[in-house]
Amino acid sequence: MRGFFYPQSAAVLGVSPRFTNLGRAIATNLIDQGFGGRLFFVGLGGGHLFGHRIYESVEALPEPVEAAVILTPAATVPGLVEACGRRGIKRVIIESGGFGEFDSDRLALEKELLAAAEAHGIRFIGPNCIGVANLENGFVVPFPRFPESIHRGEIGIISQSGGVGLAYVNRLVSERLGLSKFISVGNKLNVDENDLLEYLIEDDRTGLICLYLESIADGRRLMDLAGRTDKPILIHKSNTSAVSARIAASHTAALSEDDAVVEAAFKQAGIVRVRGAQEMINYLKVLTQPRLKGRRLGIVSRSGGQAVIAADACQAFGLEMPAFPRQFLDEFEKHFRGGVIKIQNPIDLGDLFDFTVYTDIAEGVLSRPEVDGLLFAHGYRGAETPRSREFLAAVAGMVRRLGKPAALCLLVEESEMTHVKQELDFPVFAGPEEATAALSVSHQLHLKSQWPKKSNPHKFDLDEARIGRLLDGGRPGLAQCLELAQAAGIRVAPFREVFSPEEALAAAEEVGFPLALKAGRAEVSHKSDVGGVILGLDSPRALAAGLEKMSASLGAAGLERPWPLVVQAMVEAGQEMILGGRQDAVFGPVILVGLGGIFVEILGDVSLGVAPLDERQAGLMLSQLRGGRILDGVRGKPASDRAALVETLLRLAGLMDRFSRIREIDLNPVKVLPAGQGVVALDARVVPA
Amino acid sequence: MRGFFYPQSAAVLGVSPRFTNLGRAIATNLIDQGFGGRLFFVGLGGGHLFGHRIYESVEALPEPVEAAVILTPAATVPGLVEACGRRGIKRVIIESGGFGEFDSDRLALEKELLAAAEAHGIRFIGPNCIGVANLENGFVVPFPRFPESIHRGEIGIISQSGGVGLAYVNRLVSERLGLSKFISVGNKLNVDENDLLEYLIEDDRTGLICLYLESIADGRRLMDLAGRTDKPILIHKSNTSAVSARIAASHTAALSEDDAVVEAAFKQAGIVRVRGAQEMINYLKVLTQPRLKGRRLGIVSRSGGQAVIAADACQAFGLEMPAFPRQFLDEFEKHFRGGVIKIQNPIDLGDLFDFTVYTDIAEGVLSRPEVDGLLFAHGYRGAETPRSREFLAAVAGMVRRLGKPAALCLLVEESEMTHVKQELDFPVFAGPEEATAALSVSHQLHLKSQWPKKSNPHKFDLDEARIGRLLDGGRPGLAQCLELAQAAGIRVAPFREVFSPEEALAAAEEVGFPLALKAGRAEVSHKSDVGGVILGLDSPRALAAGLEKMSASLGAAGLERPWPLVVQAMVEAGQEMILGGRQDAVFGPVILVGLGGIFVEILGDVSLGVAPLDERQAGLMLSQLRGGRILDGVRGKPASDRAALVETLLRLAGLMDRFSRIREIDLNPVKVLPAGQGVVALDARVVPA
Repeated sequence: MRGFFYPQSAAVLGVSPRFTNLGRAIATNLIDQGFGGRLFFVGLGGGHLFGHRIYESVEALPEPVEAAVILTPAATVPGLVEACGRRGIKRVIIESGGFGEFDSDRLALEKELLAAAEAHGIRFIGPNCIGVANLENGFVVPFPRFPESIHRGEIGIISQSGGVGLAYVNRLVSERLGLSKFISVGNKLNVDENDLLEYLIEDDRTGLICLYLESIADGRRLMDLAGRTDKPILIHKSNTSAVSARIAASHTAALSEDDAVVEAAFKQAGIVRVRGAQEMINYLKVLTQPRLKGRRLGIVSRSGGQAVIAADACQAFGLEMPAFPRQFLDEFEKHFRGGVIKIQNPIDLGDLFDFTVYTDIAEGVLSRPEVDGLLFAHGYRGAETPRSREFLAAVAGMVRRLGKPAALCLLVEESEMTHVKQELDFPVFAGPEEATAALSVSHQLHLKSQWPKKSNPHKFDLDEARIGRLLDGGRPGLAQCLELAQAAGIRVAPFREVFSPEEALAAAEEVGFPLALKAGRAEVSHKSDVGGVILGLDSPRALAAGLEKMSASLGAAGLERPWPLVVQAMVEAGQEMILGGRQDAVFGPVILVGLGGIFVEILGDVSLGVAPLDERQAGLMLSQLRGGRILDGVRGKPASDRAALVETLLRLAGLMDRFSRIREIDLNPVKVLPAGQGVVALDARVVPA
Repeated sequence: MRGFFYPQSAAVLGVSPRFTNLGRAIATNLIDQGFGGRLFFVGLGGGHLFGHRIYESVEALPEPVEAAVILTPAATVPGLVEACGRRGIKRVIIESGGFGEFDSDRLALEKELLAAAEAHGIRFIGPNCIGVANLENGFVVPFPRFPESIHRGEIGIISQSGGVGLAYVNRLVSERLGLSKFISVGNKLNVDENDLLEYLIEDDRTGLICLYLESIADGRRLMDLAGRTDKPILIHKSNTSAVSARIAASHTAALSEDDAVVEAAFKQAGIVRVRGAQEMINYLKVLTQPRLKGRRLGIVSRSGGQAVIAADACQAFGLEMPAFPRQFLDEFEKHFRGGVIKIQNPIDLGDLFDFTVYTDIAEGVLSRPEVDGLLFAHGYRGAETPRSREFLAAVAGMVRRLGKPAALCLLVEESEMTHVKQELDFPVFAGPEEATAALSVSHQLHLKSQWPKKSNPHKFDLDEARIGRLLDGGRPGLAQCLELAQAAGIRVAPFREVFSPEEALAAAEEVGFPLALKAGRAEVSHKSDVGGVILGLDSPRALAAGLEKMSASLGAAGLERPWPLVVQAMVEAGQEMILGGRQDAVFGPVILVGLGGIFVEILGDVSLGVAPLDERQAGLMLSQLRGGRILDGVRGKPASDRAALVETLLRLAGLMDRFSRIREIDLNPVKVLPAGQGVVALDARVVPA
């Protein structure tokens, strides 16, 4: 990927001297940003621009170049890529639109483009993008004007939309946050966000990575990349609804994902999901500072009201305000003027107007061992302005010295806010709510940095040969599904597959009463709907009656004989749950767990995980269930066997990970018995790919 | 209240010419804002300020004045108020701090202050505040400097914190939103937020009212005021956690409320609750425009990505994007340049750069009958700036002309954003997320304006005499509680109170088997814990055994004879729910409803309402239950009798509203039978005040 950012020479294709020409706009950015490499322009009409000759074709270029930027009508692009290939150009950025995002009849054009690139070993970004910007060497090729006032810094941006990406860049400018590299990926035909993410993770100029995505190219790879790095990865994933999917398809040819899977996968991989540009920027403000290593904030405010708001926000985001020793506070309290303020944490500065003491308080608080970070709410105007600005700079210095973060909230007029944002090389917030939210994300990322760098899934034994055989025979019937679960090491309530009343009665003796009788044919996936489940048969006589009844039901449902039936032991005890797995197009095997009955039906209370899982991740899935507390035992019920449930989840995840031939599996219901007694699956359904 | 805003003459008490004197700062604001009335200064040291004499005492004032502003040490305030009273001053604004918020030993001082005011018929705002600002006549008395660049407009602000209030004012300045009147209410010893809210509702200069509150003086009055007006009322209610309560108490002597009640009450009264200043400002931007009268938005965007984000936001906030007729779109499509964009709703402007067409599209969309409002995401820079600014002004004109709201989202550099905010007399947003949220609030307020102006609670008959008698006898036992529910018209499962096995057996014949046996003494409030509930007794023999068992249990629990017992019919059918009521210190009688069992225990899934209720409000309570769908019938169960449940809620609300002597009432469980069959309470607990 480095070749896209550090070419020694580059050509822009599609340039003319006309003011409305977009290639000219690319050239302008390159020249204004001081691109240090050799630069060539190509355009059918020829001529000159900015003192450079415009060559009439790629063939006419006087020397080989390392990278090309193309912005010409879509139909011309494959030919131009071909031409680049012949001239030995290996990196191409294609900004032209009008491919798959416009109409499906353009897919042929995309194929042509891909073929041309492949033939010459070319990697390309786009099409339908605004390209890259590397502030280090001035290789800045978007056709919209790139802000000249942007500072160089550690933030990398990868955006699937050029417009949204530029809006981010504008916000960085406003907040004086520094950019390292910017990439608009467009239709992602060749290079995708993961290729670029991997590069930015390795790039030592980049410390924080922001992505705007409308679709995800490869969820597993994204998770692996995110899991391996301590660089914060913030993703604004849009395109979450049916309507936006339609729009995104015509915008960047993006397909939409199951947003619940996206949400679960990001959590599992320690990716911070942001809901919009404002949130992204707020988080970045704290993430350019040292991480918040614990939950304990010291809060200082010139306004009592802002202190109350900050305390509410701490509560909302799970942060704490430790008490300060009286002696520590007394030191400052003597400076207060009217004796009308009692200080504590938060420290309400009330009628204290001495800025030297402000600095002492800020430094005193941030230095305290029981404090992990500082939130200072400061409001001023008029004559206090110069001393306030000095104070703010002093806090910035403390943060660097003490290695703890500080959120400065400025309650000032807009003009002063703008001044501070542009002059102070340290981020400021407009209110305590945003600041507290950002501090909590900083802590979350600190915790993530403590996770093992690679997930370490348990390797449980699977009877692979047996599972393979069971899947070979087409869609498995109930008995085969139950057997498959067993082969994955999941306990199943004892059962027998039977084909006649005699076999059923014999099986009943082995399994023991009371028992359940179930239809066993693969195509009866909703057994209860056709009378295919009879529970609580407590004697041979009841079983015989049940067999007759089911025979009638299945006949009425139009099922042809023979019907395999399953005779299965009943398990009354335990908490009912459902477990399942399916292959997600983007993230691969996904595991689901939910509390049975109304929790799933009424509340949709399920939790997802991407396989394979480790124990921490499986535990996290259970802790995210809203009704998960039920497993601890309520209403006089004993606590459930959480450990066995976790093991079952890990086994299910292992099974799905190993056998991509299983498209879907449901274990529903599963009974989680009291602690120490394990988990028993009562029913299973498997849909092979 | 008018006297606080439109005095013909005013005196500021506590003025000295010293630069650090806060009274001088008040004087500065009054002079800079051009206060039109006669102005006098009073200060112990005498002297002159701004060409005015400083009188040494209130007594020395040369003529009577209408209003006084006091900023002197707390201990001097009661005396000064007394002095004001003697000079006939009836309106006093007390900015001094150091009262109840500082220490409980200052409560005596507050009493003195109240006595002085009462003796002279004085109304006062404060203490511990920064006073009022009326931009119409320049009566602006906060001691912090009030921004001179603030525009006059229709927004009224009432703030319990001076600092937070000023931060709001600063945000109005930044966004060029206009202020009518500002009030900081401080400790609310005499005038409270409701007095001022009532005034601003009547004030024809004020069209939108924002409050920042750390405590609520009188919840019922607040709800009544809010319910009667179509002026939007937005409240930022902080102080929601235990920690913030401690801080708020020392800040403005505020007590904290039960935040769940606050939340429910605001919803019921159509008050918009905001979670911070940014949200408040975002909402105001749309609320200064005509209301969004339906859910249907037309979206136009220069960036496809912003269109995707806007579509996601529409989905999240329950707004819709109607399809436009092909013919309407064709009209515009012909202007597009490269044929690379397919337009729909959202309309992605893609490669269209003609600003005249932009204006036509905006006007075309906003004019369409199937569109209730417009969201336009616009990004530009450089040469496009002048035409863009003209375009924005044109949209502002359309909004006025067409009477529908438009949210302009500007994806531009900070300097341009600042320019537009200050020059365009029309609000702009930084992104579609905020804009969409604000539009949905506008629609919500439109719906509220359709509600009846006064809640019209059903008047069900209560047997008031019987209820009074039942409450007279101290804490009622179980039978009396059940009887009380009956007297309120709530059906109760048939029961008899008995004092001996013989009576029990006789009662059982009347009530019918199977039945429940319950301990009936008032002090046994958790009957099950002491073995005071036995269910499912299905024969005289079982009852006899039950009587013995309960006798042993109650004896073991140390309860002295005689024990009243209750024999009650069992009701197996129906959906189990809990209903309850209690007197809230701030909002008065509050009604609770929840689904029984795990829903309440595990999920805390309950919904609250402030009594009295009308049918719409009771229905709203049920619709807010997360598991409320259960009432529609699930898992083969029939739909529950929702109408009867609503009636039961209304009766319970009526009971609590009529009898403030009932501190708490629980009906738990209540069985809601299938539609048409009503509701039956199985148990009742009443705690009199």
